[in-house]
Amino acid sequence: MRILIVVAHGSRRAPSNEEVAALTEQLGERLEGRYAGVTTAFLELAEPSIPAAIDAAVAAGADEIVLLPYFLAAGSHVAEDIPQLVAQRRQAHPGVAMTLLPHLGASERLPALLASLV
Amino acid sequence: MRILIVVAHGSRRAPSNEEVAALTEQLGERLEGRYAGVTTAFLELAEPSIPAAIDAAVAAGADEIVLLPYFLAAGSHVAEDIPQLVAQRRQAHPGVAMTLLPHLGASERLPALLASLV
Repeated sequence: MRILIVVAHGSRRAPSNEEVAALTEQLGERLEGRYAGVTTAFLELAEPSIPAAIDAAVAAGADEIVLLPYFLAAGSHVAEDIPQLVAQRRQAHPGVAMTLLPHLGASERLPALLASLV
Repeated sequence: MRILIVVAHGSRRAPSNEEVAALTEQLGERLEGRYAGVTTAFLELAEPSIPAAIDAAVAAGADEIVLLPYFLAAGSHVAEDIPQLVAQRRQAHPGVAMTLLPHLGASERLPALLASLV
């Protein structure tokens, strides 16, 4: 059973976190059948945390977890904080495959999307 | 003369800021002819600042400046900080049209892009 976790930064502003949750829901509809579940986790300032979301996925029966960092630039959150948290959960759940994808900002399709906006 | 400014958060990690600058360059190539120039500005932790980038565009002869917030979620930076900075520069340059676009995260094309990554 494979679960996707969209990992966002988190904000003090609830509408910002709800925006991410809504996007995750849209993504889940698009991916129907490819993942048993698509959820959101936040690095800070909002819940659930990344460890909590991973633990919940494992408790729900996931044996494969894919994490997509919903970040644009490879700052310290992407380069250090998120990999550290995932590494810790890997040790806690040795039977679960965890794949940390490249962050959104690394997508080659971003320039085309930006060009469509301006 | 119309200039596009991609407004990013900024990071203490130079590679992160360089990633944004490289994306801006790719975007500039895609937009060739639509803008006289495409530049990057940072809200914090990196240079140039948003006011500095606006002032530089005006000094270069821009009478129209379009700002694209390279942010995923409408946190306080997008909802408050960037609009305030742009409003201040509007007052300083009353003859220059400044358009603050919706942030990247508001794009309806994002779910499709995310689906392609996972």
